[in-house]
Amino acid sequence: MNKSYQDIKVIGFDADDTLWVNETYFREAEEKVGLLLSHYETPNKIDQELFKIEIKNLATYGYGVKGFILSMIELAVDISNGTVSNKVIAQILEIGKDMINKPIELLEGVEDVLKTLSKDYKLIVATKGDLLDQERKLEKSGLLKYFHHIEVLSEKHEENYKQVLKRLDIEPEAFLMIGNSLKSDVLPLVNLGCKAVHVPFHTTWQHERVSKKEANGANYDTVSDLTEVLNLFS
Amino acid sequence: MNKSYQDIKVIGFDADDTLWVNETYFREAEEKVGLLLSHYETPNKIDQELFKIEIKNLATYGYGVKGFILSMIELAVDISNGTVSNKVIAQILEIGKDMINKPIELLEGVEDVLKTLSKDYKLIVATKGDLLDQERKLEKSGLLKYFHHIEVLSEKHEENYKQVLKRLDIEPEAFLMIGNSLKSDVLPLVNLGCKAVHVPFHTTWQHERVSKKEANGANYDTVSDLTEVLNLFS
Repeated sequence: MNKSYQDIKVIGFDADDTLWVNETYFREAEEKVGLLLSHYETPNKIDQELFKIEIKNLATYGYGVKGFILSMIELAVDISNGTVSNKVIAQILEIGKDMINKPIELLEGVEDVLKTLSKDYKLIVATKGDLLDQERKLEKSGLLKYFHHIEVLSEKHEENYKQVLKRLDIEPEAFLMIGNSLKSDVLPLVNLGCKAVHVPFHTTWQHERVSKKEANGANYDTVSDLTEVLNLFS
Repeated sequence: MNKSYQDIKVIGFDADDTLWVNETYFREAEEKVGLLLSHYETPNKIDQELFKIEIKNLATYGYGVKGFILSMIELAVDISNGTVSNKVIAQILEIGKDMINKPIELLEGVEDVLKTLSKDYKLIVATKGDLLDQERKLEKSGLLKYFHHIEVLSEKHEENYKQVLKRLDIEPEAFLMIGNSLKSDVLPLVNLGCKAVHVPFHTTWQHERVSKKEANGANYDTVSDLTEVLNLFS
């Protein structure tokens, strides 16, 4: 085993884009809405406006599909100068419901990795987003049996993780977090003295991107897909 | 002390309409949207349609303001036969943001009750709804300091409470739950062998109402406001 992992007792997994596909569905929804609004503006302008509205609304709506759809409706009204049809509004509502009710598409090797690691470690999920949505996805995923605890957080800042570790009575040096977001799953943990493994997903929401400077000097491992995590423990 | 409370070690509080005003804001929002849509239908018909849409969407959206607003937009499109103006849609979005950002209005005596009980009991919050929204309300309420633990649940069925008690290592007979909803805060607890106190709020959402038959024979106390809870312990 990689020497630096010998103290690990508990492994935390991010869920969206670490265990299953998620961001892809947001991009697909954006494309669909982009087409619905294509006679008002260029795709590029629509993207930019949506991102602006989402960031403006983030403190109010938080993460998750419902806030995303509310922002999409606001975008449609704004970008059409108040002339978008009811039909388009109804279609955006439908796109949202479809997103929420999508089946779960597990990423490759996820079940194997969880099965193997759950033999020697306590596994937990630490995910961000809508509570009902995340619980439902975990249930649909069939992965619940591998996890000792599920934690849905409103944010993934250092303070949030600190509270979870305290509540679950986990020492920082005994905790390893695995996830696709440097900003949410890796850097806050490294700052707390935990271990972290970065498993990049091919798509990252603009808001989750981190500059090289912010990540500078942080000590974590990167693997190209989740199955490689097993090598770190072998 | 009331003899049946002598084993209690942990007291759980519902939040919305038990610690602070909530349902009132939903009713106010419904009235505002009702006015915006008043040239399409009677207030009574609008109410009925909204309730239908909310129940249809409950499994998808869950509880909380964001799902409520999405259902309101669906209502506006439906009831206007697809002719509602973008201005009304934008106003509904604003009504939703105002709801989320409303200051907290504590119910009478709440702080006194928590201060007194926190001296002898561990207090927790067990609330249903949107995670970010509930966390924010607790922070704004200034009540966080009285609580040992905050649990935001996607549902308040027996099974949900069972899991919380297990996770927090609380024996059913040592737990008392206090809340305004018979359906969510009282009956599931009584069924689990916990104690429960019902503190009715003047407004109850139709979905939370319980028939006399369902509540039949359940053993719980009812008080007319939260401060009376202290009498049960004196």
